[in-house]
Amino acid sequence: MDRIEHHASFGGTQSVYQHASQVLGCDMKVAVFVPDHEEGARLPVLYWLSGLTCTEQNFITKAGAQRYAAEHGVILVAPDTSPRGEGVADDEAYDLGQGAGFYLNATQKPWAQHFQMEDYITKELPALIEATFPASDKRSIMGHSMGGHGALTLALRHPGFYLAVSAFSPIVAPTQVPWGEKAFSAYLGDDREAWKAHDATALLASAEERLPILIDQGDADDFLAGQLKPEIFEAEAKRVGHPLTLRMQEGHDHSYYFIASFIGDHIAHHAKALKA
Amino acid sequence: MDRIEHHASFGGTQSVYQHASQVLGCDMKVAVFVPDHEEGARLPVLYWLSGLTCTEQNFITKAGAQRYAAEHGVILVAPDTSPRGEGVADDEAYDLGQGAGFYLNATQKPWAQHFQMEDYITKELPALIEATFPASDKRSIMGHSMGGHGALTLALRHPGFYLAVSAFSPIVAPTQVPWGEKAFSAYLGDDREAWKAHDATALLASAEERLPILIDQGDADDFLAGQLKPEIFEAEAKRVGHPLTLRMQEGHDHSYYFIASFIGDHIAHHAKALKA
Repeated sequence: MDRIEHHASFGGTQSVYQHASQVLGCDMKVAVFVPDHEEGARLPVLYWLSGLTCTEQNFITKAGAQRYAAEHGVILVAPDTSPRGEGVADDEAYDLGQGAGFYLNATQKPWAQHFQMEDYITKELPALIEATFPASDKRSIMGHSMGGHGALTLALRHPGFYLAVSAFSPIVAPTQVPWGEKAFSAYLGDDREAWKAHDATALLASAEERLPILIDQGDADDFLAGQLKPEIFEAEAKRVGHPLTLRMQEGHDHSYYFIASFIGDHIAHHAKALKA
Repeated sequence: MDRIEHHASFGGTQSVYQHASQVLGCDMKVAVFVPDHEEGARLPVLYWLSGLTCTEQNFITKAGAQRYAAEHGVILVAPDTSPRGEGVADDEAYDLGQGAGFYLNATQKPWAQHFQMEDYITKELPALIEATFPASDKRSIMGHSMGGHGALTLALRHPGFYLAVSAFSPIVAPTQVPWGEKAFSAYLGDDREAWKAHDATALLASAEERLPILIDQGDADDFLAGQLKPEIFEAEAKRVGHPLTLRMQEGHDHSYYFIASFIGDHIAHHAKALKA
């Protein structure tokens, strides 16, 4: 891993690394915050998945998360949102292709060659992080919007791998909203049954473990009614008995001002499980 | 003032306004954070002056200051760093013209027509803020780099107007470093004696009030040796008996990661004076 950016931050270090990803077949950037720690210590790792159009930069510059990660002694890892580069398939729209990987393994051309984000996030990246940094094998995951979808679906699809999960304004029912329908058609093809394996709401009924879920959602979010629809997820969680805390936050929108306001609560939620 | 951006943030609101500035002869943007407060309350106002190339956006998106301003009940005002627009003089370099106003009133052509930042920051903007928001007339000022120069010189040049002052990595001796020499030559002309009225170090000896100054400076800052030179300011403060706390912060650079790490200390420093 080549370190391409490095800053002191809240007693620890905020860095950005570039590495050749075997799974994605391209170079990837990933941001890593390592808090101050005793020599030889192995710290738990909290993964952050960003939303549409984001890179590894948005979360580390705007969320104000380092303060809380430093307080709790947790490593933060923020990967990019898709494979990148000239040889990687793309689309002119902001919600498909580069910057819009949706954290799944694409099965359709031209996407399948590089868009294997589920394997990258759940296999290649954790192995790399745990081999390179003072990281333990205790992991948890959170994200925003498309990254909230990623956090929820990856936690539900990989029981035992993450000790906690949370999301800000997640796409909880991608098979039922325009963002998800467009991306899943492209990446997974026309068989809507196959989509359900990547829809957090559809995965709840068959979840192997009942990991408690924390969701914050702004009630002034422009995407609330058209793309996010947390009430669909809430109803299904209630029906199947999955523990869910859904907090509707008055006046908050879809921006990093919203994330910054509540990221401390989320990191505390994760730290409690990671250090239990 | 036209509100062009508005977000809920830490129980308050982070907004951006556009207004026609009489002093600058152009439209200006200014960011204002108003914490939650009781109806009828008048809150003190802390001004933030940004560095070269910045707009009103950098501080509000990257510093994580809203959390602390909400805790202390202080309004934060972050103006742009210069007049802007097609009719405003500019230079291709990043350190002259638009984005590089240096918080002084230019006397030389072509700059003098619009570059009247000292009058804007100390007269027009406070009047507008105090007329528009639930703001008291208790004010303080801080800034970064060029904005640290601005905070120090404006506090020293306007005794009694600000109740506290602090800076991150300020240009403390602009008459002795390349950034300052270039800007002052352009804005103030060739008379180096006239420059001293806008040099924080040169202003210390004749300061009418001994307002305590807090400065944080990263020791891994790429501009430390060539442009910032806090030791010049420290020696002069000691010589004239001006109260100064200069904290050299190990490993920290010139970025907003540095600012975010210590902005809580600065806001506490200001709140103590503003609420005394």
